[in-house]
Amino acid sequence: MSKPLIFAVPKGRILDEALPLMARAGVVPEAAFHDKSNRALSFACEGSDMQIIRVRAFDVATFVAHGAASVGIVGSDVVEEFAYADLYAPVDLAIGHCRLSLAQPAGQAQGGSHSSHLRVASKYPNLTRRYFERQGVQAEVVKLSGAMELAPGLGLASRIVDLVSSGQTLKDNGLVEDAVILQVSARLIVNRAALKTDERVAALVDRFRALVAQEKAA
Amino acid sequence: MSKPLIFAVPKGRILDEALPLMARAGVVPEAAFHDKSNRALSFACEGSDMQIIRVRAFDVATFVAHGAASVGIVGSDVVEEFAYADLYAPVDLAIGHCRLSLAQPAGQAQGGSHSSHLRVASKYPNLTRRYFERQGVQAEVVKLSGAMELAPGLGLASRIVDLVSSGQTLKDNGLVEDAVILQVSARLIVNRAALKTDERVAALVDRFRALVAQEKAA
Repeated sequence: MSKPLIFAVPKGRILDEALPLMARAGVVPEAAFHDKSNRALSFACEGSDMQIIRVRAFDVATFVAHGAASVGIVGSDVVEEFAYADLYAPVDLAIGHCRLSLAQPAGQAQGGSHSSHLRVASKYPNLTRRYFERQGVQAEVVKLSGAMELAPGLGLASRIVDLVSSGQTLKDNGLVEDAVILQVSARLIVNRAALKTDERVAALVDRFRALVAQEKAA
Repeated sequence: MSKPLIFAVPKGRILDEALPLMARAGVVPEAAFHDKSNRALSFACEGSDMQIIRVRAFDVATFVAHGAASVGIVGSDVVEEFAYADLYAPVDLAIGHCRLSLAQPAGQAQGGSHSSHLRVASKYPNLTRRYFERQGVQAEVVKLSGAMELAPGLGLASRIVDLVSSGQTLKDNGLVEDAVILQVSARLIVNRAALKTDERVAALVDRFRALVAQEKAA
């Protein structure tokens, strides 16, 4: 018997959209997965020896990059933030659309006014640094794990870099988008070594790729 | 009118124990704070111009260290992990007790067997690195934001460093504690500059200190 294939999915935002797509690809977590009182992190898969782990989005990438999971689903924001050499993102699943944006208090002058040094709060220090480097601006990134939108009002940072979908959270906090840094969608990701050595991984990539092509054609 | 004093509290574990203590110190969040459907991050304080922000534990330390909040409550695990120069933790609140421990699969040989290189999964890369340096062991830390207990079973790491209270989560995942790295309890933390310049901060420190002394004497 071969080792079960580990499939990592992220808690939260993307998961609801990913489950129907996963089901069409034959990846169906056991009923316990949907029991909100269940604190387990690992689940069996119906009619398959796959094992599904549900972890935070950043951890999905870490598990896959290290080969502890062979396959996963995660936003392109996370893929780009880490830029792991051993992580390959072959399929854009065309779900979980949002954008990574730079935002600032509504009153503040826009883009052109970047001073030569500024402080930016973000969960994405690498993407933020790279963005400002391209602009020739020296930015100090204050790493937060949430609550970015509080930072400007309390003087922690003059700008934030955060995921935006409807823009309502920004609005509620008196912030406006200044620039879009990255258009985000969910990706199927695989561990490069697993893709070469485990034909189940290659088969999954083909199945998801075909599904997305069907959706597009429909 | 002076600027409202910002008091940062952590989501989760510590908060339930902290609220009664805060109330006795005169820090009582408005009713909306307890409305679980309320996604707001910032709240008024009853009978005071204080403002309470509720953020993740690691972010409490970041807000206070940068002076965006003057006062906060957070576990000593977070204080020690960051070791921010501008963050001062003057009062041990004697609540939120747990420990930061090294753990490994139950079958694996114990402490003495540390090989010269090992991979450890943790949310606390700095504390983990410092611990292994003291042991003269080279450890590669894989940073995870949760789900540490999955790491050994999936081959992501041979050991984990994580918070332990009852030990049930470790047990459920076939892990045993190998060493206690840090005894953890919640601390009142303040921004050093705010402590010097804002007498409301010094007054809060005195009040919490007196409360804890009373509890001990009782």
